Amino acid sequence: MTSRPARVLVPVPFKRVAVEGGFWGPRLETNRTVTLPLEYEQCRKTRRLEALKRTWRPGARNQPHHFWDSDIAKWIEAAAYSLSTHPDPKLRRRVDAVVDLLANGQQEDGYLNTYFTTVAPDARWTNLCHMHELYCAGHLMEAAVAYYAATGRRKLLDVLCRYADHIARTFGPRRGQKRGYPGHEEIELALVKLYRATGERRYLRLASYFVDERGREPHYFDREAAARGEARSARGRACYDYNQAHLPVRVQKTAEGHAVRACYLYAGMADVAAETGDKGLLAACRAIWRNITERRLYVTGAVGSSRFGERFTFDYDLPNETAYAETCANIALVFFAHRMLQIEADSRYADVMERAIYNGVLSGVSLDGTRFFYDNLLAVHPRAPAFNRQKPAGRQEWFGCACCPPNIARFIASLGAYVYSAGRRALYVHLYVAGSASVELDGRPVLIEQKTGYPWTDRVQLTVRCGEPARFALALRVPGWCRRASVKVNGSRVGLAGCMRKGYAAIRRTWRNGDRIELTLPMPVERVEANPHVRQDCGRVALQRGPVVYCLEEVDNGQDLNDITLPRAAKLSARLDRALFGGVPVVTGRAWRRNAAEWHGDLYRPAGSKRRPARIRAVPYFLWANRNAGEMLVWIREG
Amino acid sequence: MTSRPARVLVPVPFKRVAVEGGFWGPRLETNRTVTLPLEYEQCRKTRRLEALKRTWRPGARNQPHHFWDSDIAKWIEAAAYSLSTHPDPKLRRRVDAVVDLLANGQQEDGYLNTYFTTVAPDARWTNLCHMHELYCAGHLMEAAVAYYAATGRRKLLDVLCRYADHIARTFGPRRGQKRGYPGHEEIELALVKLYRATGERRYLRLASYFVDERGREPHYFDREAAARGEARSARGRACYDYNQAHLPVRVQKTAEGHAVRACYLYAGMADVAAETGDKGLLAACRAIWRNITERRLYVTGAVGSSRFGERFTFDYDLPNETAYAETCANIALVFFAHRMLQIEADSRYADVMERAIYNGVLSGVSLDGTRFFYDNLLAVHPRAPAFNRQKPAGRQEWFGCACCPPNIARFIASLGAYVYSAGRRALYVHLYVAGSASVELDGRPVLIEQKTGYPWTDRVQLTVRCGEPARFALALRVPGWCRRASVKVNGSRVGLAGCMRKGYAAIRRTWRNGDRIELTLPMPVERVEANPHVRQDCGRVALQRGPVVYCLEEVDNGQDLNDITLPRAAKLSARLDRALFGGVPVVTGRAWRRNAAEWHGDLYRPAGSKRRPARIRAVPYFLWANRNAGEMLVWIREG
Repeated sequence: MTSRPARVLVPVPFKRVAVEGGFWGPRLETNRTVTLPLEYEQCRKTRRLEALKRTWRPGARNQPHHFWDSDIAKWIEAAAYSLSTHPDPKLRRRVDAVVDLLANGQQEDGYLNTYFTTVAPDARWTNLCHMHELYCAGHLMEAAVAYYAATGRRKLLDVLCRYADHIARTFGPRRGQKRGYPGHEEIELALVKLYRATGERRYLRLASYFVDERGREPHYFDREAAARGEARSARGRACYDYNQAHLPVRVQKTAEGHAVRACYLYAGMADVAAETGDKGLLAACRAIWRNITERRLYVTGAVGSSRFGERFTFDYDLPNETAYAETCANIALVFFAHRMLQIEADSRYADVMERAIYNGVLSGVSLDGTRFFYDNLLAVHPRAPAFNRQKPAGRQEWFGCACCPPNIARFIASLGAYVYSAGRRALYVHLYVAGSASVELDGRPVLIEQKTGYPWTDRVQLTVRCGEPARFALALRVPGWCRRASVKVNGSRVGLAGCMRKGYAAIRRTWRNGDRIELTLPMPVERVEANPHVRQDCGRVALQRGPVVYCLEEVDNGQDLNDITLPRAAKLSARLDRALFGGVPVVTGRAWRRNAAEWHGDLYRPAGSKRRPARIRAVPYFLWANRNAGEMLVWIREG
Repeated sequence: MTSRPARVLVPVPFKRVAVEGGFWGPRLETNRTVTLPLEYEQCRKTRRLEALKRTWRPGARNQPHHFWDSDIAKWIEAAAYSLSTHPDPKLRRRVDAVVDLLANGQQEDGYLNTYFTTVAPDARWTNLCHMHELYCAGHLMEAAVAYYAATGRRKLLDVLCRYADHIARTFGPRRGQKRGYPGHEEIELALVKLYRATGERRYLRLASYFVDERGREPHYFDREAAARGEARSARGRACYDYNQAHLPVRVQKTAEGHAVRACYLYAGMADVAAETGDKGLLAACRAIWRNITERRLYVTGAVGSSRFGERFTFDYDLPNETAYAETCANIALVFFAHRMLQIEADSRYADVMERAIYNGVLSGVSLDGTRFFYDNLLAVHPRAPAFNRQKPAGRQEWFGCACCPPNIARFIASLGAYVYSAGRRALYVHLYVAGSASVELDGRPVLIEQKTGYPWTDRVQLTVRCGEPARFALALRVPGWCRRASVKVNGSRVGLAGCMRKGYAAIRRTWRNGDRIELTLPMPVERVEANPHVRQDCGRVALQRGPVVYCLEEVDNGQDLNDITLPRAAKLSARLDRALFGGVPVVTGRAWRRNAAEWHGDLYRPAGSKRRPARIRAVPYFLWANRNAGEMLVWIREG
């Protein structure tokens, strides 16, 4: 293991970032006051909390499921982020009570898993391929690190360190150890968090081991199946790409298999590469990143083209109505992007991160914070899911497999952590989010304030607050979608040509208290076209304004959205609709559609039917299904 | 039961129709000489034949499956049709040997089912919902009737009459009888065939009972489940539309559930209505027919929009790439259409029948007769099926559930039965098929000869051969797709305006030996458009020439077929390509496509990329996948 860290940026942690007002303030508030209590209540009602008491006995109802621990863990993590900016004694007591339950469940040897302690005590570590044991461990580690960072309380962290030590004793290349690795990745990135929180390098080594052991021959999933007395199955092996275990990760060049597992792995690989400077691993991360972003990414920043296997499929295969695009996968892609961004300080990572956040991630939760999408389709007919083995149309209150709701809760609660990074004498601003960050620059404490209505408005105002002048670069991301960005410092225009560094306008100077930067990111409505190889989007355009992808909804445009055509020359305007969710820019324009009433019951007839003028009204994709459920369409036919 | 038969036409039976030369002669020849022996061999290799010996014992391998009898039955039926026009002692001995095996398997009480005799003797008649027992019985009856009609040999017919009598004792409304009906319909239409073959009205009554008992409350599938000790399942009931058992059939207005089951039922309902004149039943048939043909029918004459449940879904839902459109369902729709046609003598039934035959049915078997499609998609990307739980791309040699191969074999072998009907002093010609028919008209034997290259050419020449002059109407179908049909009798033009009867040109006169009718059905290439409610086809056209739907194949047009656009004004020409399968008209024209090479790896970019001219070459849909497998597309983008 080389030891020279490779990342050039370090995220400004969520504790030092305040998200207030603007677009995100209300979303975080809803997350804190509605979603978090609601998810706690769901964990209680579904007996996920009860399960932690380990009172379940064989034959009883409500048998704990093998991934319930991870749902609890993500809720704790979300609560921790929330507590760091909004102290709340009641919430804190609630978390502490759950932490106590978890701690009580830890076994003498450090092992900690509710399912395997109460339901299948003899099966511990016998089925890494399918049983989510290390996945649950990873989520508990993330929760422990977040809770420690938010509150300084070590109890859960200590519990998880003991568990991590148990895992390190159990797995590894040494004699007597199992050469296993998780069927559902997650622990890799969690161990790197644990390493960073504790400084204990053995956790980084364990993460590195899990990353590199994956896909090696003889194949561990075969060996553990044989140890369980199961025949080595040819079909099983053929499916190891589902677990990204078809090849050692260093020779993987394409994103394969279950999209959540995949992106958690890639994030973990990037973490290990960032800490170790391992060039081979980094090259694999870059190759996979290119494959995703050049061939396997929805325009909404979502990933996972097939519900069967919840997985990546093949290059340029991006079906809209039968997409999967799981909320968790889209969040996991943000994790991967965020890690690559720290390594390379290149805005193309932030561009994808932003695309995912404002579209495929935010779509995962209703505006009121009470209902969730598991899969985030790009075209919906409300009757289709029932016949296509899809989840029902419309957001749901909860899911039997409930990974997405707590995942989006923890993501929104931690949004502040994605906004800024500290570089060499530089503060990078990746996202435009109203609020502030406290950082140390040039040896001095500096507060950066952001005021902005972004992504609804194109102005961002940043103010520097510092006791003494400080020399550093403020590196402002110029989004890839923006073609006429401009910056003023204290009212004077700054030429961007000379200061662009990998997509960031790096304004280096000695900053004084009260210095004001005004960034303008003009966001006309754009038509976006997909590569000709994407068969599902040929002849179609997506509408985008700033980072926000728009869609048509039946409630605004009537039925048969696919019959609408948008002339290439038609002007599209955005205007603020104050009646829509308190003020949202909507996009309108002239279009065409046929008149089904003229068909008199015909199903087919010679081509040539007339079109009549129509108007479209498009709303931000992530806001769809907050009014009457119905048809929805992102890719609109052009013509 | 009223007793006045409702049908105005009676099909001229296959024994009296010779199919020779032209389009169909070689297809029947391939079916006889390649497909039939190959399917026998598959039945042997897969131990379906062996199973008839009932030597299987519990614990042994190759356990007979509960629908194997139906595969054998369809093979016998196909062989029977073939024998009626091509005597073949070897084939006849082969059939006789199988008939002997079947006869030996009949139980004392008349019961006959290989699975339930050898594998589950205690479970007889306990699970009509799922176990295909009456379905197998129906196929055996069809085989028996066909073999008797072809050869005059009664052995199998007698066996099946005894079985039908056993079934009639077992099921019915009387005390002590089970009020059951099949989970997979088929026996209804088979019993009507048995009635017609034997004159025994009790078989018609049993068919009528099965039709009318379906969907009544208390629900039989619930009761038999309870009798098996299974809990009445709410989910089970919700799924009874899968079996068309959600409502009594007379109040059903839409085509629901498994498409093969559905269309076999509808054919059986039409049969019962035809024999009994039952107006209520006929009204239900008409309503369902309208629903299918106005809202749930692929342009290829295929039905069944979802592979999950192999079923009808909802109005105007006709996905192309994820279609199911099972070969058996398309054949079953031909059965339904053919029966309605006899009742109403209206060419709209024959139009649908012809559309299905030349497209969604014929596509089910390769040109060489050796490989089969189970599902007949309208758009294919060769890599997609593996990720979408579809059957593999390309035709297969056989299937675990092998209903389609013997079904298409029996259908092609019996094609002659669909060509003509006898009406009141009239001979109806529904399909243009080279060959001849021997009928009795005006009390005299008449031979009608057809010479035609249809559907490749637009001329049909019919010649009347009769000893003495005979007065009757020759009713020639003018296909719905044809707008400029013309007819000459002995060289003189006949005005069609005055003689059109429900889509048939009824030329009534005293015909003399050698009278010649020349029908011309001009078939320019047409662009067909789908109703605006069909979201999957908006902005697209299908190309059709005569009854034949065309498609683009990768082997002719390269990859990315969906990127091709066909200008509305572009001329499309058909010309005979002699190098293609011995001579097939192909359709060519100018089109546009983008240049993916100019994208330099971009996945998305602002709209407005240039198009370059291209040419398309379309081939008949039913011939696709006879060359290199690859992409295929029926609905081409217009623009």
